[in-house]
Amino acid sequence: MDNRRVFITDVTGRDGFQMEKHWIKTEDKIRIINRIINSGVKRIEATSFVSPKAIPQLRDAKEVIELIKRDNVEVVTLIPNIKGAELAMEADVDEVNVVVSISETHNKKNINKTVDQSVKDIAEINKFVVSNNKRVNVSLATTFGCPFEGIYEVRKVSEIIKKLMSMGLKRFTLADTTGMANPTQVSDFVIHLKTVFPDVQFSLHLHNTRGMGLVNLYSGYNAGIRHFDASLGGIGGCPFAPGATGNVCLEDVVHMLHYMNIPLDPDIDELIKAAKQMETLLGYKLPGQVMRAGISTATFES
Amino acid sequence: MDNRRVFITDVTGRDGFQMEKHWIKTEDKIRIINRIINSGVKRIEATSFVSPKAIPQLRDAKEVIELIKRDNVEVVTLIPNIKGAELAMEADVDEVNVVVSISETHNKKNINKTVDQSVKDIAEINKFVVSNNKRVNVSLATTFGCPFEGIYEVRKVSEIIKKLMSMGLKRFTLADTTGMANPTQVSDFVIHLKTVFPDVQFSLHLHNTRGMGLVNLYSGYNAGIRHFDASLGGIGGCPFAPGATGNVCLEDVVHMLHYMNIPLDPDIDELIKAAKQMETLLGYKLPGQVMRAGISTATFES
Repeated sequence: MDNRRVFITDVTGRDGFQMEKHWIKTEDKIRIINRIINSGVKRIEATSFVSPKAIPQLRDAKEVIELIKRDNVEVVTLIPNIKGAELAMEADVDEVNVVVSISETHNKKNINKTVDQSVKDIAEINKFVVSNNKRVNVSLATTFGCPFEGIYEVRKVSEIIKKLMSMGLKRFTLADTTGMANPTQVSDFVIHLKTVFPDVQFSLHLHNTRGMGLVNLYSGYNAGIRHFDASLGGIGGCPFAPGATGNVCLEDVVHMLHYMNIPLDPDIDELIKAAKQMETLLGYKLPGQVMRAGISTATFES
Repeated sequence: MDNRRVFITDVTGRDGFQMEKHWIKTEDKIRIINRIINSGVKRIEATSFVSPKAIPQLRDAKEVIELIKRDNVEVVTLIPNIKGAELAMEADVDEVNVVVSISETHNKKNINKTVDQSVKDIAEINKFVVSNNKRVNVSLATTFGCPFEGIYEVRKVSEIIKKLMSMGLKRFTLADTTGMANPTQVSDFVIHLKTVFPDVQFSLHLHNTRGMGLVNLYSGYNAGIRHFDASLGGIGGCPFAPGATGNVCLEDVVHMLHYMNIPLDPDIDELIKAAKQMETLLGYKLPGQVMRAGISTATFES
């Protein structure tokens, strides 16, 4: 295995769609997600088994998981609690993703629990999921800072990881929920955490809120991260964090890495087509840039 | 002098305004440029002494140079030919910026000359300007590739630099005119060129066409570049290159470098205010992101 290879988790179906105000028909969700899978993306966070009251847009989670094309792709769903974990196991997903914020304030707003309570609940979820021979990933929201609490020391992150590891958790996503991180901070945090926890597989979940999505991804890559989240067209956000805007854009990420000669699976041309189709479907201008400018090597008649 | 310090040339008045279709009143241009100077930017490319027929928006070049606040700031103007150089000397600018494309096709479209002819003209301009005790900077358009000719080898760039150096030119801007570069290419080109030409002061002029403006800047910084162009709000483009969009955004660049603890002069809060004022003036949504999201450490009431 080429140790430069990058693995991308597409989060369009979850982090992307959850922010859409207008109902996206289940069949349209399926069509978009299947195009992403067909482009070569090998891991998708397709939806969330969350209360339909909290996020009505994702009330068709069961149908989405049933109807998407499931060959040659790992399917992950976000879950907020043990009830969600049960639904996810019934739907036979490969992995569940649970969220806890590093920020006490954001955790309260996002899932109405203390961080300690979340950690305990995650341990319980993990036992249940592992007994079903499936995996749990923990997303550490506001890893690089919080719009209510500011920027904090990496120690605050490592303490929570340590607790969760002692309870059997092994996979962690460092999430820059509101796009506060800068490339120096990403590099410092990643190098610190990879040194303290050499056996953990860390991934990065970045938002482009302040234009630093790609530079933070590049910085994370240089610090040794090989797993990244992204969403088609750069849609997404966080309903419980002010100023949060889209995820790093899937096709812009793939485009950059492709031209850096970094091996990865998705096909850029297919992704651009998918992004354009989704833009038509959603009816507004998406943040993605390569879908508009075209790939770097596209030449024009002179 | 801290060798980490970054110097920014604001190009709002030239690369930015030249792309605006609607006439911007001279007094509004002055107001914007003065706000940028007041924010602490120490070098501005304020306008271009170009034919009013070619770029009507910049037909007030003389008045702009006369009326902007000129203390504590270096003033540069773009010039297309010796006539422009004469006007620039009359206006007593500190430096002129001349352009030659690495791409024969783009050079023809941009200034209707062969590259060889441009090189000869630049040598003549340089003699004249130096005899006036002023400096010439050469912008190498399409350094990282051309939308008509594709991506080329760095050798093609170094050959043109070598010719121009033999004619007395010393300052060069590597311009990614249409945002084709990726961070690996920027790093490779910069390291190569700085090794071959250790005495040249290189600067980088980047566009965010494919979302890679900030990551290319970061990569250039890591390869040793300390001088960068940027435009307020990320406005700009190139009228003679398909798909070209805005420059890297001044306040987004300053914001990122500030949070990376890199010393630099401009004040981010002042720049955000200036960008908002310009957005109102221009009447459309600017590409800048920090002006919308706010700075990373801005906290909200919980």
